[in-house]
Amino acid sequence: MDIQRYLREKKEIVDAALEGYCPDPGGTGFEMDYPPSLHRAIRHSLVDGGKRIRPILSMAAFEAVGGKGDGILPFACGLEMIHTYSLIHDDLPAIDNDDYRRGRPSCHKVFGEAMGILAGDGLLTEAFRVMTTPTSVDPAIVLEIVHEIARASGISGMVGGQVADIESEGKEVDLPTVQYIHTHKTGALILASVRTGVKLGGGNEETLRALTHYGQRIGLAFQIVDDILNVEGKTELLGKRTGSDLFKGKATYPSLLGIDSSRRMAGELMESAIDVLHPFGAGVEPLKEIAKFIILRES
Amino acid sequence: MDIQRYLREKKEIVDAALEGYCPDPGGTGFEMDYPPSLHRAIRHSLVDGGKRIRPILSMAAFEAVGGKGDGILPFACGLEMIHTYSLIHDDLPAIDNDDYRRGRPSCHKVFGEAMGILAGDGLLTEAFRVMTTPTSVDPAIVLEIVHEIARASGISGMVGGQVADIESEGKEVDLPTVQYIHTHKTGALILASVRTGVKLGGGNEETLRALTHYGQRIGLAFQIVDDILNVEGKTELLGKRTGSDLFKGKATYPSLLGIDSSRRMAGELMESAIDVLHPFGAGVEPLKEIAKFIILRES
Repeated sequence: MDIQRYLREKKEIVDAALEGYCPDPGGTGFEMDYPPSLHRAIRHSLVDGGKRIRPILSMAAFEAVGGKGDGILPFACGLEMIHTYSLIHDDLPAIDNDDYRRGRPSCHKVFGEAMGILAGDGLLTEAFRVMTTPTSVDPAIVLEIVHEIARASGISGMVGGQVADIESEGKEVDLPTVQYIHTHKTGALILASVRTGVKLGGGNEETLRALTHYGQRIGLAFQIVDDILNVEGKTELLGKRTGSDLFKGKATYPSLLGIDSSRRMAGELMESAIDVLHPFGAGVEPLKEIAKFIILRES
Repeated sequence: MDIQRYLREKKEIVDAALEGYCPDPGGTGFEMDYPPSLHRAIRHSLVDGGKRIRPILSMAAFEAVGGKGDGILPFACGLEMIHTYSLIHDDLPAIDNDDYRRGRPSCHKVFGEAMGILAGDGLLTEAFRVMTTPTSVDPAIVLEIVHEIARASGISGMVGGQVADIESEGKEVDLPTVQYIHTHKTGALILASVRTGVKLGGGNEETLRALTHYGQRIGLAFQIVDDILNVEGKTELLGKRTGSDLFKGKATYPSLLGIDSSRRMAGELMESAIDVLHPFGAGVEPLKEIAKFIILRES
């Protein structure tokens, strides 16, 4: 299969759906549904940008287990909104202080810090509004998925990992701590994306177990590759500055194990992720290719 | 009825439930469920503090329509978590830059700006995790309530109002704009609190309509009284600095209409809120008393 084409086609679907969830508020005064400036700030960060890995993973998992139709789209978009809010807040001066993101100035550089905070808050809340919009899907399943996504995004997931990440800056940390940071900061939401697709697509317990293994492995691999690219990648491809982890004394796999061991580890995680998919036939082909893409990407 | 005692008893129930949702993460390293520092920052802002008006309104509305048991508690706590996250973020230097809140230093003053942002993010996400925890309540109703709370908290609600509030600072604004700010920044979540109680308690359409009218009136009255207290209140009672709205050139009812007209308006809103409850018998007595309390409070 042509993974580049697959990713492009799925990204187009996600981008179009996100556009639909980001309507012009209309008006300029009190008759507006929400302030036009907030609309611009959210669009700046949400629309077009990014590889859409999380939504695409949820769609690929959904289809791998036989899911049909576009019932996955509100969750795919919710996952991307949560990811995007986390980037907006991470880039703030008080946290990572990054001026560039996805090849353009970060949200607060264009709209100011207050708007950066509030656009992030708005996006996070929108994610939950979008995911709980009534559809024909069994409300019990929706609730279970939203609950898992909230857990993966919050204090016991992404936010917890981000706090641990900041607290490790400039310190000597051990491998379990780096692993804690990465599995929570990045891995949790990637795993939740895969599991969302499986649950919504009607996958059974055995499939859920296998794809959970897959999601855990690629979640960690994704962050290791991110860290390697932060050392070796090209700024113009990444759309953000390289070398910043080293400068900030971030706890990363390359800083702890070196580049070669990190690359080897990412490769092993990818193989382990793919291995577990072998019993599942042709439907999981995109998931295998996404795992390879995550390792081999240059941005 | 003794409203002070009622509020105290309900606050105790809410405080105990919030304690339960704020467990010690355990450990100090990678075995922890989430970082102890994040736990301390969230506890600092969430535990004990505040009047718990939103959760108490949801409980009072729940009981007014005949709701039984403690099924309301996850939503009561979720509403308070959302309110508390919004205070933490509002107090940040980039937004309102307030050093005091609920009688103690604001979250970022104690734990730093990065933690203030992340503790707020964590609390907002926890709210949705808590509210979507499986219970015996019909998942379709839970989903409907969570969706409404997300809408009331996000870009078309609280966050939208907050953006409009910031953008109006130092500008001459008209009454419709002030009304937009207040109905969104404060009113939307108060209204959602009341409607959550009605929906979960099984209130019919007529009751929902009446209590929606009630919630809209007290939501706006609450903010008008807040603005009056910011001018006339006592810092030691409020637990935050007075006079800050004037200093920042905030768009408020007192700044636009003067204190006397604002007080009259709040009184009229309270009466309108109480009037609509008359057909509903003794069960709505606490709601009536809460409306009066909102107007007469000194903090």
